[in-house]
Amino acid sequence: MFTIIGERINTTLKKVQTAVAERNADYIQNDVIQQAEAGASYIDVNAGARIGHETEDMRWLLEVIQKVTDLPLCLDSPDPHVLEIAYGLVSQKPLVNSISLEKDRFEPMITCLKGKECRIIALCMDDSGMPRSIEDIVSRAHRLVVELEQIGLTRDDIFIDPLIQPIGVDTNNCRMAMAAVKAITTELEGVHVTGGLSNISYGLPQRRIVNRTFLSFMMAVGMDSAIMDPLDSALMACVKTAEMLIGNDDYCMNFLKGVRAGVIVS
Amino acid sequence: MFTIIGERINTTLKKVQTAVAERNADYIQNDVIQQAEAGASYIDVNAGARIGHETEDMRWLLEVIQKVTDLPLCLDSPDPHVLEIAYGLVSQKPLVNSISLEKDRFEPMITCLKGKECRIIALCMDDSGMPRSIEDIVSRAHRLVVELEQIGLTRDDIFIDPLIQPIGVDTNNCRMAMAAVKAITTELEGVHVTGGLSNISYGLPQRRIVNRTFLSFMMAVGMDSAIMDPLDSALMACVKTAEMLIGNDDYCMNFLKGVRAGVIVS
Repeated sequence: MFTIIGERINTTLKKVQTAVAERNADYIQNDVIQQAEAGASYIDVNAGARIGHETEDMRWLLEVIQKVTDLPLCLDSPDPHVLEIAYGLVSQKPLVNSISLEKDRFEPMITCLKGKECRIIALCMDDSGMPRSIEDIVSRAHRLVVELEQIGLTRDDIFIDPLIQPIGVDTNNCRMAMAAVKAITTELEGVHVTGGLSNISYGLPQRRIVNRTFLSFMMAVGMDSAIMDPLDSALMACVKTAEMLIGNDDYCMNFLKGVRAGVIVS
Repeated sequence: MFTIIGERINTTLKKVQTAVAERNADYIQNDVIQQAEAGASYIDVNAGARIGHETEDMRWLLEVIQKVTDLPLCLDSPDPHVLEIAYGLVSQKPLVNSISLEKDRFEPMITCLKGKECRIIALCMDDSGMPRSIEDIVSRAHRLVVELEQIGLTRDDIFIDPLIQPIGVDTNNCRMAMAAVKAITTELEGVHVTGGLSNISYGLPQRRIVNRTFLSFMMAVGMDSAIMDPLDSALMACVKTAEMLIGNDDYCMNFLKGVRAGVIVS
């Protein structure tokens, strides 16, 4: 099953930031209910935009969100202290977003994760920056898996993020991501692969068609999760159709259910 | 560049059959003009449905079509005699649709093709029927390429058709096609891969979304042509977006042109 990480509760988004600042629980809860109904597997919660308020904003968000959904949450912060507090406030095994190989981030995150029951998004980023080749991505994925397995996480708990880069910056970026994902799913059997889908279309017009065509490409090579907007109905229809095509939908039952529910339209 | 074989001039389609029976040139010419404007690379011409009339219908179609377009034509018949006559009536190097490894078909077609300036669609079909495995498809592709090269065709003249089978019949059919196409484009460098796109969605509702998601999958593994409806605007937008993603659109210029022309919308 494809894991959909709903990306909408993020304080870098203006409306969310306003709702958080005004402690407008209705706005947040309505959005979460819609994401859940649309088929999100996790609700990502990012409270990082209001400098100096992250801990209290995260605390408030976790409280109001868990009043309306039983979905597990994706705790999205670069700060291990915030994650430590957030971890204590969730009722389901969370997905932590994220660890990377950057020195300043890696050790504190490993310390924070050790002994915790959680899943983790692991970014193929190190101190030399964004990956510049297939080999960069794949070798970083290997290092991350080794390190995370050492502190007790299983491969099923690990979501590798190859770091999707805009096609508008380099027309090779999609091919690079595809080849890397193919290698990761072959060489590191059992890990998941996720990523921020909309990065691919950064700077382009008509971004949604780029995002969903890219999603098909990535699912074709083994990506089985995405950080995405579950309220993009054309994108969700694409996920369901692609799930059928890759052979994950016995008798096309979920596809047909989606058609009958009116969520898959040509 | 992706090769789009426009499939609309086919007498198995009711309206086309009527137009042909009534010698309604306007209907045919309007359709062809629309396919050309939408971006077809070839116009497929199939006159096979009116039993006993194929030769005269083909002759008439080739005449009226070539009055309104300079596009090369795809001569679509299982009958070498019809193809022989049709070949003599086209002004551009045609694509012949098709040869297969079936005994009754193979030898007469080879005889017909020998010495002719043409391209060919080669079906991975033999006397044991439709392929049942990746190996079936790939081994038949190899045999076809060997035979066609022997009579002087170049790889650039050969369009392998792996024979797309409905996902509704076997949920493994898309995966099988993908793996076969990956192998063919790797092992038989320089050949093209095409196929009747809409076969994948046979028997399902909302077929167009299945067709275009499948097209993304197949382009991701190297398919560079399809027999398809160029007037399906969402499908055409998908082709252009996928061309950009696989790295065949420098500076995303064609994508941006498509957006400005209003043919690529999210």
